[in-house]
Amino acid sequence: MEDQIRRIEESLMSFVPKGNESIETVIKSMEYSLTAGGKRVRPVLVLEFAKLCGGNEEAAMPFACAIEMIHTYSLIHDDLPCMDDDDMRRGKPTNHKVFGEAAAVLGGDGLLTLAFETVLSERAVSLNGTEKCVSAGRLLASCAGAEGMIGGQIIDLESEGKSISVERLRLMDKLKTGALIRCACLLGCISAGADEAQIKAASEYAECIGLAFQIVDDMLDVTSDEATLGKPIGSDEGNNKSTYVSLLGLDRCRELVSELTDEAISALSVFGGDTDFLSSFAKALRDRRS
Amino acid sequence: MEDQIRRIEESLMSFVPKGNESIETVIKSMEYSLTAGGKRVRPVLVLEFAKLCGGNEEAAMPFACAIEMIHTYSLIHDDLPCMDDDDMRRGKPTNHKVFGEAAAVLGGDGLLTLAFETVLSERAVSLNGTEKCVSAGRLLASCAGAEGMIGGQIIDLESEGKSISVERLRLMDKLKTGALIRCACLLGCISAGADEAQIKAASEYAECIGLAFQIVDDMLDVTSDEATLGKPIGSDEGNNKSTYVSLLGLDRCRELVSELTDEAISALSVFGGDTDFLSSFAKALRDRRS
Repeated sequence: MEDQIRRIEESLMSFVPKGNESIETVIKSMEYSLTAGGKRVRPVLVLEFAKLCGGNEEAAMPFACAIEMIHTYSLIHDDLPCMDDDDMRRGKPTNHKVFGEAAAVLGGDGLLTLAFETVLSERAVSLNGTEKCVSAGRLLASCAGAEGMIGGQIIDLESEGKSISVERLRLMDKLKTGALIRCACLLGCISAGADEAQIKAASEYAECIGLAFQIVDDMLDVTSDEATLGKPIGSDEGNNKSTYVSLLGLDRCRELVSELTDEAISALSVFGGDTDFLSSFAKALRDRRS
Repeated sequence: MEDQIRRIEESLMSFVPKGNESIETVIKSMEYSLTAGGKRVRPVLVLEFAKLCGGNEEAAMPFACAIEMIHTYSLIHDDLPCMDDDDMRRGKPTNHKVFGEAAAVLGGDGLLTLAFETVLSERAVSLNGTEKCVSAGRLLASCAGAEGMIGGQIIDLESEGKSISVERLRLMDKLKTGALIRCACLLGCISAGADEAQIKAASEYAECIGLAFQIVDDMLDVTSDEATLGKPIGSDEGNNKSTYVSLLGLDRCRELVSELTDEAISALSVFGGDTDFLSSFAKALRDRRS
């Protein structure tokens, strides 16, 4: 997996424009956040589902990079003073703390735009064909847009300081984080030309680990420490934020995460190939400490 | 032309997601700026070049809408306090003045994403085919991204309060406004399946009117009044901004705009069809008062 992440990170950089000094600031802003670490969950899912459905890493790589660019831009904009106003991310100063707010807005815009340039790039088309690139781009836009991730962010903003129901929390997370995780799994399927049953199973797996992922995030905000997590802990409680932990309690959260992980793993039974990696991946997300 | 603009505005709204109450705020933010008027220069150019190259309005319309979405998002983000900090745009309060900064950032992100969803939509594909939609999306991304419009914005930000050379001003405008105007003309060509000579001529026309457009903008900031322009005048001088007027003087600007308009019109000679509209359009941009 380390090798795979290295290949993802190399590919990510290969899609960033180079050698144009007059636009250096915005390129550096984009690169800073793209290389700021992170678990690369979404691109790994793209590549693994592509392989599981009989495709290959090389063809799926532009789609993997595109979704990581979308995820990265969303973090940059999310951290802005007018949004979550965060100073630290993954143990490093947030983008606007380094480059200023304007370059952070533009760096985010640049990554969002680059994601689509990447999905539609000559490299992507020569490896996947135009049909698959159109499907991939369309899916990416719908999962990242107002009816997907951005919609989740607006619900999040409007829920700030309010107690919300578990249903609303669920809808928010389904859009805010779930949409991109599902998108990642399906992008792998698209690259590989998966059939309906495979796409349905990938979608189920994604929905389960997406929700489990978010519940674990909420749990870590209570149970982890700042050094391990790379950002301040206890911020949800401090912000009076409704979380799975505040609404359901830690024990029920632990139970739910365990059930969802099992469900995700059993969704994989449809696939003929080796599902060990994706099973372990679901477990690793369940057991993660940061 | 009024009919055409009405059709563009109807189409724009047809691509905005509807009926989802939980994401209402971000949808309203997107719609507010999309319907805030404006000259619709870019979508008109898409449709007119499509027709001139033997295509049709219906097929080119999704591309026309996409470029207007990109233009609109760029205005929302450009007006933010951390960027140009403008309170008024086209005679109305700017997006963040109405919806707050967070919803303005997200509304802009939503429109940028929707632009690509539109270019790759079933409607666009059924009318243009996958090949043309991939070309259109790729061109749109490269013209709107860090090496295009966003690059121009970063140069603009870094030039604030500094006197810059006419060459740097030219590069900035070529990216900041020129890239999208050229993109508009070429999107029309792509939809129509234009040949190399037509694409070259469209590019020449676009570069001439793009530069003329920007020079006229600078001139209006000096010669117009707030009621006509829909925004405060004299702001460039107040901001110590280098403009074509400050660098070359009003007379030389007038001369240049006239030369560029003539050049744009003569580039149209390659086309067999009726170029009256595009000739008049170039002249109207030259003679505009707002």
